[in-house]
Formats: sequence, structure tokens, C-alpha cells
Amino acid sequence: MTIGHQMHSWIKDLFPINRSITGEGARFTLGYIKNWLPGLLIKDVPTGYKAFDWEVPKEWNITDGYIEDNAGNKIVNFKENNLHVVGYSIPVDKWVDLDELNNHLYSLPDQPEAIPYVTSYYTERWGFCLPHNQRTKLKQGKYHVVINSKLENGVLNYGELVLRGKTKKEIFLSTYICHPSMANNELSGPAVLIAIGRWLQGLTDKKFTYRIIFIPETIGSLVYLSKNLAHLKRNVYAGFNMTCLGDEREYSFLPSRLGNTISDKVAKHVLKHIDPKFKEYTWLDRGSDERQYCSPGIDLPIASIMRSKYGTFPEYHTSLDDLTFVTPIGLEGGYNAVKQAIEILEKNVFYVSSVLGEPQLGKRGLYPTLSQKGSTNDIKLMMDFISFCDGKKSLLEIASLLNCPFFNLLSISNRLLKENLIRRVEIK
Amino acid sequence: MTIGHQMHSWIKDLFPINRSITGEGARFTLGYIKNWLPGLLIKDVPTGYKAFDWEVPKEWNITDGYIEDNAGNKIVNFKENNLHVVGYSIPVDKWVDLDELNNHLYSLPDQPEAIPYVTSYYTERWGFCLPHNQRTKLKQGKYHVVINSKLENGVLNYGELVLRGKTKKEIFLSTYICHPSMANNELSGPAVLIAIGRWLQGLTDKKFTYRIIFIPETIGSLVYLSKNLAHLKRNVYAGFNMTCLGDEREYSFLPSRLGNTISDKVAKHVLKHIDPKFKEYTWLDRGSDERQYCSPGIDLPIASIMRSKYGTFPEYHTSLDDLTFVTPIGLEGGYNAVKQAIEILEKNVFYVSSVLGEPQLGKRGLYPTLSQKGSTNDIKLMMDFISFCDGKKSLLEIASLLNCPFFNLLSISNRLLKENLIRRVEIK
Amino acid sequence: MTIGHQMHSWIKDLFPINRSITGEGARFTLGYIKNWLPGLLIKDVPTGYKAFDWEVPKEWNITDGYIEDNAGNKIVNFKENNLHVVGYSIPVDKWVDLDELNNHLYSLPDQPEAIPYVTSYYTERWGFCLPHNQRTKLKQGKYHVVINSKLENGVLNYGELVLRGKTKKEIFLSTYICHPSMANNELSGPAVLIAIGRWLQGLTDKKFTYRIIFIPETIGSLVYLSKNLAHLKRNVYAGFNMTCLGDEREYSFLPSRLGNTISDKVAKHVLKHIDPKFKEYTWLDRGSDERQYCSPGIDLPIASIMRSKYGTFPEYHTSLDDLTFVTPIGLEGGYNAVKQAIEILEKNVFYVSSVLGEPQLGKRGLYPTLSQKGSTNDIKLMMDFISFCDGKKSLLEIASLLNCPFFNLLSISNRLLKENLIRRVEIK
Repeated sequence: MTIGHQMHSWIKDLFPINRSITGEGARFTLGYIKNWLPGLLIKDVPTGYKAFDWEVPKEWNITDGYIEDNAGNKIVNFKENNLHVVGYSIPVDKWVDLDELNNHLYSLPDQPEAIPYVTSYYTERWGFCLPHNQRTKLKQGKYHVVINSKLENGVLNYGELVLRGKTKKEIFLSTYICHPSMANNELSGPAVLIAIGRWLQGLTDKKFTYRIIFIPETIGSLVYLSKNLAHLKRNVYAGFNMTCLGDEREYSFLPSRLGNTISDKVAKHVLKHIDPKFKEYTWLDRGSDERQYCSPGIDLPIASIMRSKYGTFPEYHTSLDDLTFVTPIGLEGGYNAVKQAIEILEKNVFYVSSVLGEPQLGKRGLYPTLSQKGSTNDIKLMMDFISFCDGKKSLLEIASLLNCPFFNLLSISNRLLKENLIRRVEIK
Repeated sequence: MTIGHQMHSWIKDLFPINRSITGEGARFTLGYIKNWLPGLLIKDVPTGYKAFDWEVPKEWNITDGYIEDNAGNKIVNFKENNLHVVGYSIPVDKWVDLDELNNHLYSLPDQPEAIPYVTSYYTERWGFCLPHNQRTKLKQGKYHVVINSKLENGVLNYGELVLRGKTKKEIFLSTYICHPSMANNELSGPAVLIAIGRWLQGLTDKKFTYRIIFIPETIGSLVYLSKNLAHLKRNVYAGFNMTCLGDEREYSFLPSRLGNTISDKVAKHVLKHIDPKFKEYTWLDRGSDERQYCSPGIDLPIASIMRSKYGTFPEYHTSLDDLTFVTPIGLEGGYNAVKQAIEILEKNVFYVSSVLGEPQLGKRGLYPTLSQKGSTNDIKLMMDFISFCDGKKSLLEIASLLNCPFFNLLSISNRLLKENLIRRVEIK
Repeated sequence: MTIGHQMHSWIKDLFPINRSITGEGARFTLGYIKNWLPGLLIKDVPTGYKAFDWEVPKEWNITDGYIEDNAGNKIVNFKENNLHVVGYSIPVDKWVDLDELNNHLYSLPDQPEAIPYVTSYYTERWGFCLPHNQRTKLKQGKYHVVINSKLENGVLNYGELVLRGKTKKEIFLSTYICHPSMANNELSGPAVLIAIGRWLQGLTDKKFTYRIIFIPETIGSLVYLSKNLAHLKRNVYAGFNMTCLGDEREYSFLPSRLGNTISDKVAKHVLKHIDPKFKEYTWLDRGSDERQYCSPGIDLPIASIMRSKYGTFPEYHTSLDDLTFVTPIGLEGGYNAVKQAIEILEKNVFYVSSVLGEPQLGKRGLYPTLSQKGSTNDIKLMMDFISFCDGKKSLLEIASLLNCPFFNLLSISNRLLKENLIRRVEIK
């Protein structure tokens, strides 16, 4: 099974679960992830916990929810699709007429086949979501609305896994596990992060320490920041917010607030060489946990590597964001982009030429011994690389200057290291 | 009466006066201004006063000037239009033939209906200006040329008004009062500056001190600089050279020599949001008192906000620059541009977010409580603004980043201040 | 005789000589140059001398070389064109069949009339170069191959001339003398450098000291650097690698590695005002001794001013690069470009205005005494220049700001110096 199919199978397993920012669905999801990512710590903070300006809400759980017509038909049913009930709906069980019902219905006239995804975390209400086509066919009459939910003091859960490397400096990888049955936003993020975590667990010689978290969006990242801010500000060297990584349409980048951190540079380098037409968004297009990670005073170096960005694809936050929109190939593309970014961070060192003047590559078999027109074309990239090995430019910076993939220079640098023609200098 | 009509009426009153860099006309004009701007100090420096490389010339006054033909007709007459006599003409009273007369005539073949504006401040000569159409019809014969002028030791006058604010830091506003009967260049400048001065006099809570001066161009600004240089260099925070502010054709900007002072930034911001197609000139297009204010070693932060720039409109420095070219609407546009620039200087502070992470706007009624596709569009500008409140970017800088008018952010910042979500930090 | 014809006659004299990186040909060439450039020191370093990562090879000399067919016809003959023998060929004298011969033949299918230029300095082999058209007509049979060459311990020669100026700071001018019968690459470089050297010898009042060297390419520049590195790093202020200066097709520029040295700025300024369409190459297009002069840890400020750049013209490194491709007019263009660059370096000082505010140019006869529309157009460049004389911008930087040739400002600055309106300040 390819890694793409492996990720897709995780998404398939997790798709039916009714996740929200708290509750059994999130807990079940974290337990599932822990099966694939041993060592994951599942943590909780109680309702009422204060995270900066925010407060953990009551825990929400739901067992059933439907709209029944006069004839006893369940015309809208949570058990068929958990998007049908507005997230965090309070319990209800009564008969209402169509006018009153309409005040509690949500649908999308522009996407009449789709069930929209709607939540009301911080204000108590109840509601149902349904395709607009179905809504417009509802007749006058009485409807029985039932939501069997509980909104009680409880906990908010998140998962955390720290993989130690040679230095205390950390790469911070974050995704969220608070969306019900939708695939790109948001099961692709957890699936790719499980795969990345498993790959990192297999690496024995990591330079960086890796901090991997699975949290509910917004309130979860605020909780995590409020508990770990000093440590994160001191240690995080780079990081990525991992979301919308599973479709096949395009690659996208969204910068950190300051826009010029090492995370931004690495992400843009990777995406440019995967697809020169990758979409580059600005900070003003943000909409995920980078909003917290990069906010004033927090300022972690977190950028986003994505396939089609949230809010830009029509399937976003509807029942159309499903297991056909997210594919093994799409996921594998997202996984490889993040993996390459991490590999660059691990390998991005500074080199200085060991000799003054150009080295004589000929005597080392690295240069043609016969000089004629065009004879040096093959060796040009190596010579260009050496000419920039002044100890002041990282491998990544030289790759940008030479407009070539980082990994091409990496293999050249290994050859030159073996010949003692360059030597590594410490990162400044 | 609108402020535009008010300014136009001042121009109408002052239009017939024969101003020059010295003399009764300038003095009368300053007296008129003082009526509308109580507290204005009218100062004088004597002929021969040295201002850096320059020297105040003799004072020039004129009571009459004409060319009379054989038949006793006054064919060119100062009393009909004071542009007819070359500024600073020495007295003359003699009969000359057409050939000799022609040596003393100035006209514009390309604008044959216009009387040109010509001066000779620093070399003694006499001359008359007339429409080219009239000149070409002059017949051979004798002409009686009479100029009743005096060029004697006297004074150069200027007006100065200082309005104290909370800080010693000054906004420097300068215009000139040395042009005879022309309206855009230059009665629009004094008219707008009177109106700005009256508005500032009504403001009770000014952050900055305002220094308002009405001077003859070039020699006047040099005199003023020579008397106040140390004070100005120490205290001037920003300032504008106010000229050509009264027509309706376009808005224009001319930078300070260094081009990146706060005055430049504010002026460009204001003009861009008044008219995205405003004309942006460079330092090489300069031609007014910024030549002195920004010269090497003086280097005050003075930019120019204008409607149609001197030298670029065909009416410039001719009798066509009259009370129809300058309009109440045009003047009001110029006035508002300068006023907005000043308001921005007054209100341009630094804010820092009071909370870590994003504030929870929902519980303050600033954010929709229901989360669905597109629900946050209205609130986006507020969230973007908060995301830049890191205490390092001024309101003006954030407005540029967000490409929105300063005043939109100002009203948002007032709302957020009330909610204690941001707090002011001192200007660095 | 124009300087162009003079340079062309030197090239004609030197063209037939069989130069290589060592040997009699280079020695003869240096002797010839010394005749025209008295004081040139001809130096030598022995075979085996270590220059950083390189070693001076054995000295190569050749008296004859040919391929003889069955019938005794010399079908390829070194005495007719020294390009026919691969540079540094070891001796050979034997009969070979066509198959074996072909292993030692070099030709250009795309330029079938041209004899290519091929060398094998650091690996011992023998070979012949010939037009592809001739090669394809060779019939099966036996061929007598004879090369009378010697590859023995000896010396590598180079020429050095230091012309003292008022300061120890040096302008470094380098060209190479290691190519056999080719004209643009590379007799144009030595010819132009002889002419520049003779011109500099005639200058009595040089600010800078000039270091002029004639060396074999690569190994010669490495030898020179290894012997003089500390001195060069301490003293070289600017410099040019002089190559490909003799054809008429275009002007070209290749930057130093860092790209923003004074040499780069001067060279680009000169070329832009000679030909706005000059070709601007990047460091990645390099291919001459700047590879050594600018390598990491050496980092001399050396740029290249060229006509058609090596490697870009079809005649490059073939027998077509001859006395018709390089012309007196082409050489004179190259000479003037380098000469102007040097003149700018000599004259590029900082000025500060002597007066505060604008100077009164009128009283010095530098400004029209009559002020009317358009009267100041002629004097605008002078006024713009003065407005930038703040002691912080060099003449060259002001010329760039004003987009005008350096020499126009130079003549204006001389006029203003005479009037004491500006004064020189020390280079920072």
C-alpha cells in the first residue's frame, strides 16, 4: 500500500465520527491516532479553563438528531450525516410549524445539493443543516424537531507527541481534529501529520526536536499556547500549520505574519520546485491556527503548506468535501511537500570552500581534462555552488540564488565534502 | 457659505492687489490675512539683509504704468491688469520707436491671448507684458512708455502664526504671497492656509504645535530659514509647502528631497485615497519653496500637496490663471486634502493588542456567534487590524499594509480601545 | 594612426605566435609588450610551484606538428595554423590507421569550416584539430602523425607593472596572454591593456596606484593571487578583468561575485551611457579570471567590461576569431569604455554645497536674470546637481540619480568649484 492509500484509509476510518471542539468524537479520533502514532499523549483541560482572552466551553455530546414530518418520516437525520445538526446545538424536542422551523434551518442557495457545515460554539442555539433543494420543497405543516445532545461541564482534549533530536530547537507541527464528516478540511491534516510523525519516529539522527500536536482549531491552539508559550517562544525554530493537504487541484502557501521566517522560505522553496504555479496567499488570506501562532506577542515562525486552501474550493465546509475530493494521490503530494520542507530544515547548513581560488576539479575526476567549447556544461552547477560557499549563505539561500532544487545541491555538497573541498560552518 | 465659497471670496478680494516679493501689495495682503487669522504677526527685514547666499533686494512699489500710442491711447495699462508691467521694473518715461519698444516687450506666441507674468528681481530693467495677438498688431511709430515705480531701500514682509499644541514638535505650513493677479499660483495657497489656520485655531486638543507662515517665495523662505534654522531643525516633525490648491483638474504630490519622511508618507496616503490616479512628481520636478526647505544642510521634512502643479497647466504664470480657473469646489478639495493630512499626523499612534492570541470578539458582540461560510467578511478589516497591532507599526503603516483609508482604521481603533482590546504605546 | 589602428597593429604582430600557459610563445609575447610598455617586469615561477589547490605544470614548447598521408602530403600542419595541434600535446611520431587517428582528432560539426581550439593542460595526451569538412573527407589508410613538442620542467611567466599614484589604494587591471592565434579571445585584452597602460604612464596626477598584469588565465591568476593575496586584499579599491574587447557587435558587462562593488557600479554606468542596450550578464555567466579574483575568501572587487563576451559569439575558440573579427573601431570602443571607467574612479568624489539654501546663481551669471515660463530649463541639471550635494552621495551616485553621464556632472562640478559653491569632502 502506498503512503497515499494508507493516509486515505485513515481518513476513511475517521470520516463518520462526529467531531467537535470537545466531546467523544474528538476523544475517539485522538485514540485512533495514538494507535498509529505510539507515544502520543492525550491531554485534557476542563470547561472554564482560561486561555488568554478565551475560555474552554462546555463539552458537547450528541446521540441523535432529526426532523420528523407529520407522517412520521425522518426527513433530516443526524445518523445519516452528522453535518445535519448545527455543531453545539442544545437539546430540543418539540413540534413546530414551518415558519418557526425555518428560523433554525441553514442551507446554501448557491450549492443547492450540499449540506452546509455550521457551528455555534459560544452562543447557545439549536439548528439543522440541509440541502437547499430539500428545504424549498418543505410544505406548510407541523414538524417534530429532536436533538438528543448534552452541553455540560467536561474537558477539551488534544494530543501531543515530542520526538527528541540532537538540539533543543524545535520544529512545531500542528493540525486540528474538530471537524465532523469532511475530508480535506479537516481529516487530510491529521492523516498527513500521522504519516509525517511515523516517518520522523523512524529517523534516528534528527537534528531538531519535533513537537507534533493534534488540537481543536482556535480554542485548542489558544489552550496549547497558554500552557506552553515561554517554552515555544524560546525553542521553536520553524513550524507548519497543517491543513487542507489532500485534494489534487493545486498547491498553496500562506505565510507567517512577518512573512520572512525560515519556515516561509523553506515552504516557498519546496512548493516552487514541486509546482512553479503554486498559489501564494498573503497574511490577509489567513484563516486557520496561524491566526493564533503568529499573533502579536506570540509570533512563532509558522507558515502553512496546503493543497487547495480552505475557503477557496467550492466543497469547503459542506458535505461535498468528501472521500472522493480527497485522494491518495492528493494526500501523497501534500505529505511529500511537508516532508521535503522538514528534510531541508534538517540539512540546511552553511559551507565554506576549503581552498582559496577555484579548486582544481580535474585532478579529482570532477572536471573534464580536455578543454573545448562547451566542455564544462555538466559541471556548471557544481562550480556555481562552490563559488557561493563563503560561509555566509545557507544551502537553501544558495539554492535560491541558483534557482535549483535544494536536493540537487545537497547531493553535490556530499560529493564535495568527501573530497574535502568544502567544510561545514556553524549556523549563525 | 461653504468653506470653498469662503476661500474663493478671499481670493476675489485679494486678486486685484499688485503683490511682489516686497512692497505695499504684500503688506496689504498680510493685513487682510490677519483680519481672518487673528494673532498673525507681520514681520519685516530690511533691504540688504543677508539670508545665506542671498540678500533682500530694494523694496519695489508702483503706482502706474502704461504704453501710449501717438494718438494718446493707453494701449497697455497696469491699472487694467497688473501683469502688464514686468515685476520690479525701474521707472521710465520716454518716447521710443517700435524697435526699441520691442526689446522691452514680453508675450507668448503659443498662448496669444494671454498676458505672461515676468519678473526681474535681481537685475534692474523695465518692461511690459501683453498678449501676443496685440503685440503683432503694433504699427511702426513712436510710443510713450511710462512706469511710475520706486525701487528704494525698504523692507521685506512676512506673516507668522504659531499655535501651541501639547508638544513642542511642530507641523510647518508655508505658503507665499508675492504673486500679482493670479489665482491658482498663487492665491489658492494663502486662501487654503487661512482656512486651515482658522480650523486649527478652533481645535482645543492639538498634539502638535503649528507654525504657519505667509512669505514671499524663495527670498522669503530663505529669510525665514536664516532666522529660525536651529529651531526648525530641532522641532519640525512634518510640514507642507502649500501652493496650487484651487483648480479642479487633478491632485498632485511632490516629495521632499529624501522622499521618505512622514510628510511624504502622509501626503501620499491622503491623495491615494482621495484619487487613486493622483499625479506623483519627483524631486526633480520641484519648483517652489521645498527647494529651500529641503536643500542640503537644511533638510526639513516638507512635502507638497497640490491640485494641478505649477508649470504643468497652460494657465500657469499668465493672466489665464484667474478666478474662473480656481473654483470653490477645487479649493475645497485642496483644503480637505491638507486637513486630512494634518488629522492623520495628529492621530497616527502605535497600538498593541492587549491580549495574546486573537481576542474573542464574539463575546463582545463584535463577531457573528454563528460560524458558517463567509460569516466573517464584515469583520475582516477589524481582525486584520488587530493582527498588526504589535506596537511596531503606526496606524498609518497598518493602513498602508491593509490598503485602506487611515480614517477607517481610526474608527475601528476607537471601538477596540473602548473594549480595552488594544492600548496605545508611545511613538518611537 | 588612431589608437584603434595602433592596437590592431599590435594584435597583428602577436597573432601568429603560438602562446600557451607556459613556454616560448608567452615569453615572446611578454617581451613584445615590454617594448611598448617600458618598466614591465617579466617574472617566472617554476614547474611544481603550488598556487592554492593548483600546481604549475611542466613547460610546454613545440616546434612542429603535422599529419601526413600515404602520399607524403602534410594534410594538417601546425606551421600553417597553430590551432591544429591540441595545446600541451605530448610528442608523437608514428603511423596510425584512420580509426586510431580519429580518437585524436577534434572538429566542430556545427561549424565545419572552423578549426577548434582545444587544450589538455593537466592530463597528458596528443591530438590534432581540423575543420569538420576536412575530417569527413579523410579516407581509410595509414597516416603519419608527428608532434615535435617538449613537456619539461620549466617556468610559467607573467608580466607586472605598478604605476604609483598619490594613494596606496590600487586599481587592478588584469588580462591574459595564453591563447594562440585568436584575436578577440585573446589578443584584444592585452592590446587594450597596453594602450591603457601607456595612457596611465602619461598621467602625472593619478589618485590611485595602478597594478597591471599580463598572465596566463586561471593558473596565472592563481599564481599571482597566491604570491600577493594579503597585499591585494588590503589595497585593491577597484579593478577590471580585461578580455574580449575588440569586436564591434555589442558591449557586455559581467559583475563581481557580490555584484555591488564600486567596480560594478562604474562599469555599468559607463556602458549604459555608451550603449543603453549593453548586455548585462550575471555571475552565473562567468568564465574568466574573475572566477579566481572573486572566489570566496579572495573577494577582490573585480568586474568585467567587454565587447562580445567569450562563449557567446560563434567565432569563440575557433580559427574564425581572427584579425577581421577584431577591428580598430571595435578595439577603440573597448579602450574607451575601460578608460572612462578609470577616469570616473579617479574623479569620483563627494561634494557638499557651500551655502545653505539654494545658491543665488543669478549674481554669478549662472542663472537667467529674467524670470519667465521655462526660463530655467537650461540650468536645471546644475540646480539638480547642487540639490544633491549633501556630502553623502558621490558624483557617480548623483549621476545615477539624475540619469545623466558622469562626465556632464564633472564639468558642472568644475564650474561650481570655481565659484566656491561646492567643496570637496573626503571619501568615506
